[in-house]
Amino acid sequence: MSGAIYVINPNSTERVTRELDAALAPLRMAGGPAIECVTMAKGPPGIQSQRDADGLVPDLLALAASLEDAASAFVVACFSDPGLHALREQSRRPVLGIAECGILTALTLGHRYGVIAMMRSSIARQLRYIGAMGAGERFVGNLPVELSIAEMADERVTLDRLVAVGRELREARQADVLVMGCAGMARFREPLERALGVPVVEPAQAAVAMAIGRVRLQWGRSLG
Amino acid sequence: MSGAIYVINPNSTERVTRELDAALAPLRMAGGPAIECVTMAKGPPGIQSQRDADGLVPDLLALAASLEDAASAFVVACFSDPGLHALREQSRRPVLGIAECGILTALTLGHRYGVIAMMRSSIARQLRYIGAMGAGERFVGNLPVELSIAEMADERVTLDRLVAVGRELREARQADVLVMGCAGMARFREPLERALGVPVVEPAQAAVAMAIGRVRLQWGRSLG
Amino acid sequence: MSGAIYVINPNSTERVTRELDAALAPLRMAGGPAIECVTMAKGPPGIQSQRDADGLVPDLLALAASLEDAASAFVVACFSDPGLHALREQSRRPVLGIAECGILTALTLGHRYGVIAMMRSSIARQLRYIGAMGAGERFVGNLPVELSIAEMADERVTLDRLVAVGRELREARQADVLVMGCAGMARFREPLERALGVPVVEPAQAAVAMAIGRVRLQWGRSLG
Amino acid sequence: MSGAIYVINPNSTERVTRELDAALAPLRMAGGPAIECVTMAKGPPGIQSQRDADGLVPDLLALAASLEDAASAFVVACFSDPGLHALREQSRRPVLGIAECGILTALTLGHRYGVIAMMRSSIARQLRYIGAMGAGERFVGNLPVELSIAEMADERVTLDRLVAVGRELREARQADVLVMGCAGMARFREPLERALGVPVVEPAQAAVAMAIGRVRLQWGRSLG
Amino acid sequence: MSGAIYVINPNSTERVTRELDAALAPLRMAGGPAIECVTMAKGPPGIQSQRDADGLVPDLLALAASLEDAASAFVVACFSDPGLHALREQSRRPVLGIAECGILTALTLGHRYGVIAMMRSSIARQLRYIGAMGAGERFVGNLPVELSIAEMADERVTLDRLVAVGRELREARQADVLVMGCAGMARFREPLERALGVPVVEPAQAAVAMAIGRVRLQWGRSLG
Amino acid sequence: MSGAIYVINPNSTERVTRELDAALAPLRMAGGPAIECVTMAKGPPGIQSQRDADGLVPDLLALAASLEDAASAFVVACFSDPGLHALREQSRRPVLGIAECGILTALTLGHRYGVIAMMRSSIARQLRYIGAMGAGERFVGNLPVELSIAEMADERVTLDRLVAVGRELREARQADVLVMGCAGMARFREPLERALGVPVVEPAQAAVAMAIGRVRLQWGRSLG
Repeated sequence: MSGAIYVINPNSTERVTRELDAALAPLRMAGGPAIECVTMAKGPPGIQSQRDADGLVPDLLALAASLEDAASAFVVACFSDPGLHALREQSRRPVLGIAECGILTALTLGHRYGVIAMMRSSIARQLRYIGAMGAGERFVGNLPVELSIAEMADERVTLDRLVAVGRELREARQADVLVMGCAGMARFREPLERALGVPVVEPAQAAVAMAIGRVRLQWGRSLG
Repeated sequence: MSGAIYVINPNSTERVTRELDAALAPLRMAGGPAIECVTMAKGPPGIQSQRDADGLVPDLLALAASLEDAASAFVVACFSDPGLHALREQSRRPVLGIAECGILTALTLGHRYGVIAMMRSSIARQLRYIGAMGAGERFVGNLPVELSIAEMADERVTLDRLVAVGRELREARQADVLVMGCAGMARFREPLERALGVPVVEPAQAAVAMAIGRVRLQWGRSLG
Repeated sequence: MSGAIYVINPNSTERVTRELDAALAPLRMAGGPAIECVTMAKGPPGIQSQRDADGLVPDLLALAASLEDAASAFVVACFSDPGLHALREQSRRPVLGIAECGILTALTLGHRYGVIAMMRSSIARQLRYIGAMGAGERFVGNLPVELSIAEMADERVTLDRLVAVGRELREARQADVLVMGCAGMARFREPLERALGVPVVEPAQAAVAMAIGRVRLQWGRSLG
Repeated sequence: MSGAIYVINPNSTERVTRELDAALAPLRMAGGPAIECVTMAKGPPGIQSQRDADGLVPDLLALAASLEDAASAFVVACFSDPGLHALREQSRRPVLGIAECGILTALTLGHRYGVIAMMRSSIARQLRYIGAMGAGERFVGNLPVELSIAEMADERVTLDRLVAVGRELREARQADVLVMGCAGMARFREPLERALGVPVVEPAQAAVAMAIGRVRLQWGRSLG
Repeated sequence: MSGAIYVINPNSTERVTRELDAALAPLRMAGGPAIECVTMAKGPPGIQSQRDADGLVPDLLALAASLEDAASAFVVACFSDPGLHALREQSRRPVLGIAECGILTALTLGHRYGVIAMMRSSIARQLRYIGAMGAGERFVGNLPVELSIAEMADERVTLDRLVAVGRELREARQADVLVMGCAGMARFREPLERALGVPVVEPAQAAVAMAIGRVRLQWGRSLG
Repeated sequence: MSGAIYVINPNSTERVTRELDAALAPLRMAGGPAIECVTMAKGPPGIQSQRDADGLVPDLLALAASLEDAASAFVVACFSDPGLHALREQSRRPVLGIAECGILTALTLGHRYGVIAMMRSSIARQLRYIGAMGAGERFVGNLPVELSIAEMADERVTLDRLVAVGRELREARQADVLVMGCAGMARFREPLERALGVPVVEPAQAAVAMAIGRVRLQWGRSLG
């Protein structure tokens, strides 16, 4: 119980880890668990395909194993939740995924949720995951932002595109809550919410919030 | 953000409130939100029927209104989540229900969840609620403990019966995680888990854990 | 079996009760049960929010209790079916809700049904109800008419708006039967149906029709 | 509107038609539509297979065509609802099936319904039909009575077997309402209900009750 | 095992049978089962309604019975799969339907499938069938081509219309695989696929491919 | 089109590959595609956990890449379908999984399918997969055989246990078709089917049968 919640960014892009770290600041409480964000140096620079997601699992498991003793919980901070169930088998700590927790938390904020996907190539993967979660009944769809790297560098363009996709989910699909289908873009959450007028879930925050509860409550500890 | 999380026990039985209070101790962290458990004196002594659940809503709304300024969030601490959506309309604070959060949290602890209901009269009501939540895909069933008041007074008998029902859900329905379908019985959570060998969710703890996240993150604040 | 079917308008607007009464005329048969429409004077003037729906249940139960001896059945005539299950617990008579019966009847008139909601604020509440009913598989959506009170006073404007929403459900969602998501607007049913070219269900008529069968057949009488 | 509701028994067994006729007596009301039960002489003696159900459709359509002018509505009185949608295409009258209406009506009497099937050979056919209806969410299963003809001749044996199957659905599957998966056995409805303690739906009664409403309300008349 | 796979075109239009025959050429392999396409002379010229589909079953069963000894398997080559389950009861050979196999095969080619229906009158029938199959979770919808006979004679117009409908399913409904909802139009499969950029399933080819496997593997032979 | 169908056994146990090879003999036709079974030497000896399944994906992708030019299609021959979607991204050939194809094929052989799992540790993984496939509506459950290695060496004991689990799925869950949840046990298929009286699907055979169709038809070739 004295360990940290390790938030593993399974891609090798430090910038994403830094943004995660900043986004999680409100969840750091004096008497609460430490929250440590780590970059998986061996990961791909980004996770866009099923190959990227599947391919990083061995490294993720190795990294988590090296942190096991220092950890009170793990959060896998990629919206594909790669290796989530494998890590649950391996670790004796609570393990949470950001897609999983982002979606479950959205269900407390509205009735029909939509997912803002980053890439078109993620659409079917997310659908399979939502199917595996059994979370399809209140799901209205996922639509891609599909920004080029150049466009992503421009915050204004990025926000505009996030808003456009969110609006489509809200208007045509009647979403009344949205989940950001990515890690490391928490700084857009509030402006997006303000522009759209419906709650927006940042999934890494959602997952760490749930992890804090799990660390404090120690459920399942007796199960070994 | 400086207010307390108000955990409202909508029945008038102080003992339940005291047990809630004790159960939530691990979630009180230095630097985190205060957690206050309140008894709704005007509520029925217990909530066994749909009439009990529906009938208390006006009083619940009035009580919450009186606490609005002091509150950073509300948790409705009855497994029927009575008045949950009405209170969401009324309050500008995050509002969570224990059935809702207990079930959503269970989905991170196993694949198929079962609910240990207290009374046979709650079965259909819980089924309607799970249907409304769209949470039926991984639900294996709810079975009643159906203890008389005399039996409930005996901790040994109560635990034995909880274990028997949990075992039925695990064996015949293949539940790999269980949700306690009641408030105020948190002291049975760990022995139940140990006896059954699968994680057991205490729903009030689950809800307050999620409420802490919501209070810290302040999502939706801009939505007014 | 000699009592009347009491159709309770749980709002306090007499005009709605009068329209219900007129709409039910075709279901009054010489040898069939009497059909009495009553206004719940203590109800809100209209039922637009979950708070409205939940808040009226105690009064509804009291009103129904006062009619129990004179009743052969009850119909709750608000499209939220407020207090439906609570009244079923309380009464020994058949109890039907207009949303429930309107939707079930629609399933015999087409394959995919849409609901014309009156207010945007009813959308999520209806979705929760359809989820609780397990009636989502053939549901294509609900869209709001969202008329101001001034607009509602104009029959032409109202019909135009009903037609526009119905057309959207038929065209974009492929509804082949529509349910009017309100009580007291039966006079629009036929023109709406004619304008849209698909069957339109008036839910209070649907519910009373089913109630007549229940009164005549006396199922469940032996169950006490 | 002046025509009769024709209840077509699509098998050639007059005894079934006579039992239908007797069962529908409570639905004959002064001022209400006439209810005529007819035997399809060209039908098979019983309908046990998909071949039986599919094979009778041409004759059923021809019989209904001959009755069209005299009819205000049609009810297909076999629990496979054979030819239901074909007859809807052919006829300008309301057309209802007893399986369809029996199931929809059950949804107003309990939360989870089970079906007492007569033959093992009907199980998969009923499952396909319930799937086509989109009525699976609250369905707990169908189990066969599987009586030999000799056994069926003995009312005591038949009732005992109906009760045994109903009890299995209630106990092991948690059905709280049952549908009789056959026509012509209405005399067992009340004793079955009394023995089981949960409501039991006789589907031909359910269908004719809904047909009366449709005849009186004349929905869809303008659609031609 | 030495018999032929009989592909029965249940309509009387020889042209369709010839197109089936040509489309199945790639599935004729030295050492593999013979594939024979037969026209049902007694069938309707086309199958557009439920009446058409239901009405042909007796003739289909008779035709198949006459081929039983010569057959190693049957394929019902109409997208309504008329008589599929009846023929399964009758025949001791594997029996497959083109709608069934087209849809199941689509599930290996993409995540969300759409169906290009020929006629508006087929929409609800297909929906009932997909419901009966339990194949609705990954289904995004079916939209009709609705060509007049004159238009159908023009290949260019036909392809343009197929492309337009396919594009609507891909764009607005996010289908990533399409099923052609008809038999006898296999020549359009490749140009359609090329125009749309997503896989397109020709259902008769899908069914015969699966039939070959069944013939070679002889599963169920011991079941009699 | 001239390449072989490569059936990749992703575990390192040659015996399994040999059994696959023998089981696929009936699908080798003179004029059909060659079928080559290969062992993944770098794979784990068996695949029992999610870690096993996820961990082998990089090696599987590498092996398939080395075979790409010689292949006309790939079949992943482990009932977890590990790496299926990743390989679809990587390869320009049809790629099929044995769980996927075994389940889809079962849907043409009965209405409700059950899965005979080998290990208890596979249960939740299979449930997630069936959820991702959207194939849950006709699924009655998966139960584990859970044999020790010593027991597995005894064919009699193994068959008895397979039969016992199959009987449980047939009797208590009403499965009318069963899928063997493993590769390399095809020799038990026929005795199992004979003992149980319902069709039993061997999934590698099902997948290769579907692969033959895909190779012959060359769908999607134009999509690059």
